[in-house]
Amino acid sequence: MKRLSVASAPAKVILFGEHFVVYNKPAIVMAINMRAYAKSKPEESQKIIIESKSMNISGAFTISGDYQPIIGGFEGKEKLLPIYVAIKSILERAGEERGVRVEIDSTIPVAAGLGSSAAVSVASAAAVSSLLELNISREDIFMAALEAERIVHENPSGVDPAISTYGGLIVYRKGDGIRRLSVDARLPLVVGDTGIKRVTGEMVLLVGEMRRRYPLVVDRIMDSGEAIVDVGVEALRRGDLKTIGDLMNINHALLCALGLSNETIERLIHAARRAGAFGAKLTGAGGGGCMIALSPPDRINYVVRAIENAGGRAFITDISLEGVRVEVQQPNSA
Amino acid sequence: MKRLSVASAPAKVILFGEHFVVYNKPAIVMAINMRAYAKSKPEESQKIIIESKSMNISGAFTISGDYQPIIGGFEGKEKLLPIYVAIKSILERAGEERGVRVEIDSTIPVAAGLGSSAAVSVASAAAVSSLLELNISREDIFMAALEAERIVHENPSGVDPAISTYGGLIVYRKGDGIRRLSVDARLPLVVGDTGIKRVTGEMVLLVGEMRRRYPLVVDRIMDSGEAIVDVGVEALRRGDLKTIGDLMNINHALLCALGLSNETIERLIHAARRAGAFGAKLTGAGGGGCMIALSPPDRINYVVRAIENAGGRAFITDISLEGVRVEVQQPNSA
Repeated sequence: MKRLSVASAPAKVILFGEHFVVYNKPAIVMAINMRAYAKSKPEESQKIIIESKSMNISGAFTISGDYQPIIGGFEGKEKLLPIYVAIKSILERAGEERGVRVEIDSTIPVAAGLGSSAAVSVASAAAVSSLLELNISREDIFMAALEAERIVHENPSGVDPAISTYGGLIVYRKGDGIRRLSVDARLPLVVGDTGIKRVTGEMVLLVGEMRRRYPLVVDRIMDSGEAIVDVGVEALRRGDLKTIGDLMNINHALLCALGLSNETIERLIHAARRAGAFGAKLTGAGGGGCMIALSPPDRINYVVRAIENAGGRAFITDISLEGVRVEVQQPNSA
Repeated sequence: MKRLSVASAPAKVILFGEHFVVYNKPAIVMAINMRAYAKSKPEESQKIIIESKSMNISGAFTISGDYQPIIGGFEGKEKLLPIYVAIKSILERAGEERGVRVEIDSTIPVAAGLGSSAAVSVASAAAVSSLLELNISREDIFMAALEAERIVHENPSGVDPAISTYGGLIVYRKGDGIRRLSVDARLPLVVGDTGIKRVTGEMVLLVGEMRRRYPLVVDRIMDSGEAIVDVGVEALRRGDLKTIGDLMNINHALLCALGLSNETIERLIHAARRAGAFGAKLTGAGGGGCMIALSPPDRINYVVRAIENAGGRAFITDISLEGVRVEVQQPNSA
């Protein structure tokens, strides 16, 4: 056992196909180099103690799952529970019954469609695995984070834990599952956060209602979304940023057709395009959350400023080819 | 022969399917109660003298087509030529060779996608026909205006002269031609003019280029546009304003996907929706020109104000069930 271990895992954005993926269309998901960190230490008691700096919550779970708040009262349980499930899953896979203390440090915006919760689970599972020197594979870490996702979403696609674990680009389709895409291009992105919290479930219901009312209209829109992914895969392989940008613009308009944008998102998107982005779109559920803009490297600061002037919080990112990784391991006795 | 005769013909908006109609998809076109007026009087000389108040041009054509400017120099010829062609076509159909004087009075915005030029041709043909008490059918007036359209567009669809002649609603598809749709609902519309002149040909080329680059993506978008027309026909028949509004919003987003909107249009459209419109879309070529918003009758003044506050020129209109009509006939000797 180590004295301390830190692991990190990346956030993600959906490049193409959000929402349509619910209707068996493919989506392309990309890991971004914005990471959640988990620091783990041994814990004398048999408890799993989790502390989230960013959420200002701290609490202890017994091995049987009872919760004792330290900071933030019993309401904190709901937020820490997925992390506990991921850690417990790792301990069980290794046949261990030990206490650990995990500190989460993440600057990934929460409930913004960036896969913050999966990144935290993946980083926590990896930190604990590294601390206890467990014989744990990436696949095990993915599975642990997937179990955690089941606490958050009833029937998770598994895309978020997968992209956080493996990094890079993933093409996902329900039934077909997950296909990794190899690219070596840079994909300079600006993420713009509207600051509006959205509820994914509500946006999914909205699309369902549109499809119920106008099935033929909406199905053809989703067929177009599928074609965007097909063309997008090839454009990503050859690093053709212009085409990727065009396809982002088209995909965004299709999401608008389903009523998923709003004036705040539009303001950020128009600002990014005007500042020279190849293309821009909302990413994730819509109705708030984040937009992304693909930018020529020499225009990226203009795009950031344009999004901020339009009222968003902007940050520069890029594809993260690396998924989960151990950052620091301190031996118990040197 | 009468001493004076005034005829009028309506402008139009495209409710659904602009641009897609170039690719053999159907479109729905609606006459609106905003009209072009033509006042005709006998002319002693053998000339056809045309005066446009709104354009501040006046000139005389000989029967053989030679042009003599009165106001506005020789540049005026291009603008008056279609009107001359329509009038000449009517005279020829009736086997007449007489001079007439026609005064045009139209408040329909020009080059804004509202079919101003067809409305002027139709009204002029009808005014001359009424003045000379010619035995001329509506079909003849349509054909005369279609000849005039050939001066403006190389290969006109004939939709603009048809809707201006017959009024109401038309479903048009290349090859299938024109099908009239009977409705008796009111369709309270606000037309918002961006004031940006657009060049239809350039916007058509833009769509062609998008389709060449992304054929599968764009074809599915146009399939969705076709489904919108199918659902739209039924919604129009039963006067279901809510559904028509939804379909307008979806159609607009599909036009955005092809790059046909811009920030000025978007500002007007969002303003109209925020003010309570059922739906709003650009109408015609895009890239400028006009947008339309379908509004609950009791919200229509809010919608007008919202569009004007957003920088557009707004006017209230509705479906014009009547096409061309003779407004005034004064007998030569009472």
